[in-house]
Amino acid sequence: MSVAIKDDEIDIVIGAVRSDLTSFLNEWRPMFSRFHLIIVKDPDLKEELKIPEGFNLDVYEKPYMDRVVGSSTSVLFSGYACRYFGYLVSRKKYIISIDDDCLPARDPKGFVVDAVSHHITNLTTPATPFFFNTLYDPFAEGSDFVRGYPFSLRSGVKCALSCGLWLNLGDYDAPTQALKAKQRNSRYVDAVMTVPAGSLVPISGINIAFDREVLGPALVPALKLAGEGKFRWETMEDIWSGLCVKVVCDHLGLGVKTGLPYVWRTDRGDPIASLKKEWEGVKLMEEVVPFFQSVRLPREATTVEDCVVEVANAAKERLGSTDPVFARAAKAMLDWVNLWKSVGYISSSSSAV
Amino acid sequence: MSVAIKDDEIDIVIGAVRSDLTSFLNEWRPMFSRFHLIIVKDPDLKEELKIPEGFNLDVYEKPYMDRVVGSSTSVLFSGYACRYFGYLVSRKKYIISIDDDCLPARDPKGFVVDAVSHHITNLTTPATPFFFNTLYDPFAEGSDFVRGYPFSLRSGVKCALSCGLWLNLGDYDAPTQALKAKQRNSRYVDAVMTVPAGSLVPISGINIAFDREVLGPALVPALKLAGEGKFRWETMEDIWSGLCVKVVCDHLGLGVKTGLPYVWRTDRGDPIASLKKEWEGVKLMEEVVPFFQSVRLPREATTVEDCVVEVANAAKERLGSTDPVFARAAKAMLDWVNLWKSVGYISSSSSAV
Repeated sequence: MSVAIKDDEIDIVIGAVRSDLTSFLNEWRPMFSRFHLIIVKDPDLKEELKIPEGFNLDVYEKPYMDRVVGSSTSVLFSGYACRYFGYLVSRKKYIISIDDDCLPARDPKGFVVDAVSHHITNLTTPATPFFFNTLYDPFAEGSDFVRGYPFSLRSGVKCALSCGLWLNLGDYDAPTQALKAKQRNSRYVDAVMTVPAGSLVPISGINIAFDREVLGPALVPALKLAGEGKFRWETMEDIWSGLCVKVVCDHLGLGVKTGLPYVWRTDRGDPIASLKKEWEGVKLMEEVVPFFQSVRLPREATTVEDCVVEVANAAKERLGSTDPVFARAAKAMLDWVNLWKSVGYISSSSSAV
Repeated sequence: MSVAIKDDEIDIVIGAVRSDLTSFLNEWRPMFSRFHLIIVKDPDLKEELKIPEGFNLDVYEKPYMDRVVGSSTSVLFSGYACRYFGYLVSRKKYIISIDDDCLPARDPKGFVVDAVSHHITNLTTPATPFFFNTLYDPFAEGSDFVRGYPFSLRSGVKCALSCGLWLNLGDYDAPTQALKAKQRNSRYVDAVMTVPAGSLVPISGINIAFDREVLGPALVPALKLAGEGKFRWETMEDIWSGLCVKVVCDHLGLGVKTGLPYVWRTDRGDPIASLKKEWEGVKLMEEVVPFFQSVRLPREATTVEDCVVEVANAAKERLGSTDPVFARAAKAMLDWVNLWKSVGYISSSSSAV
């Protein structure tokens, strides 16, 4: 079922939140070395990046980013959001992005998981958002559609986004991570599934892949918490972006998959310290979720850009007065769509720093 | 999180489609022997049942069933549908029902799966239909709600139905089973998940458990194919019932879980021979699914009985003219609700044959 993909149709985008990428890239070398890498340095990071030899890559840093984006935009690329600059300047069909504190995982049999190849399989086999298959991904080897699955829905739809999971350190929020400081995820669930249409999902940006040509501008760095730091559990940028993506995919009939591949998240940071900051995320989600659950896109919104603009306008109108963070997010989304139109589609290859 | 359940709150209901239950019950003895069993003999089955010693059970056969149900009803208990008689006469809170060609499965570590205890855990921990959790069941040991999951939805809702899966012979329809005659399911997916609200699912009756007090009459033997035989892949009764259950659960804010526990389905039957009969199921599902996707229950329907009656009336109105099987199904649903009211709630214990 899988379509053959050429290596040069893929960019691996790494947001460098830490300066030393040596062990990260060396561990991933067997999976990454065939592909072009885009490394975007967190603009807040002062130290020089340490990058091992032997990769085909472009590095983007603050001066170049400022030049491309200009000063007339509210889009922010600080912290984990720096990777979005890579999404913007890539010219490839597929993007794979993995946090710089993740290493290749091993499956229960001890084999190293090739996250790249698994994401590409997820993206190039159909998704099935309109009916639930109890045996999970019907396109996985040894699986199929179960009895009762309508035949007319068995061809599925295009998969636009693949969300992988995490062994060791799960992707919890600051309160949960602090409360269960010693809990580690050791459950390897051997499954990929399509998130059903109409169901919202907290998409984590730690380990994802997407079809940039299809979905590009829907992954948007828009929601930045006031007390946001350099740990995932202090951020919400990917959650907001993911809710936007899911609403857009549901509207356009595209699929979102979750499950395999796993990555191994290494421990770092002190969740208790993070908890001492007031974690706005708890409060914000209570506003955000009803908004995304009820937002309806007009039939005329037929492109991803249209849809993001519609979501931004609705967010401004319905959430803008509840918290300034939402008005800023709505503005950033509109600026992002404009940026994408002016920068994201340039066909000549962009120069690196 | 799990509520303590007493053994006498559970009935294990077995529909005997084959006469010799010796090896089936002996294999399940370690898990079943603490509980009361209801064995319902397929009215079409001529031979006497063979049941090993040492179980606390009641057996129901055709003469008694006819007496209880009477002749004024369109409800049919032949073949796999015989188990519904057990649901009707049970007086317990929970029902667990497993097909008589299933044996206990082993997990990847080689341990025998206790399907009973797993189903009860599924039913007594909350379900989370209103937001998707990427780490699967947040109430499973070692798991939790991921970052971005709204705190207000973390208490979940009551789980009314638990659907287990199958190793070895998967639950495919006749065409798929015939096409992939040698395919066996060996993928053990170590996960339980809530099927999101609004998403339909083909619920298999092979290995299920439910809260009879909450959901009882929604499990309804209504859709009988003309060419239906004694193999699962020739039946649709559970698929129709499951779509009805899901619509009712979504309306009433109840949860449906799928995943663990697995059972081992033994091989029997010849799918190629089944395929030679015209399999109506393929055609019918193309009518059935749009119906269940679009049926809306009125706010006044606040009980399961109300909801089943509403679905039946809508099915009669919208599907009745397309195929006589649907008019019969609608009639059977209405009769079933009446039966449930007159027989299903009798508080004295019923006598066995």
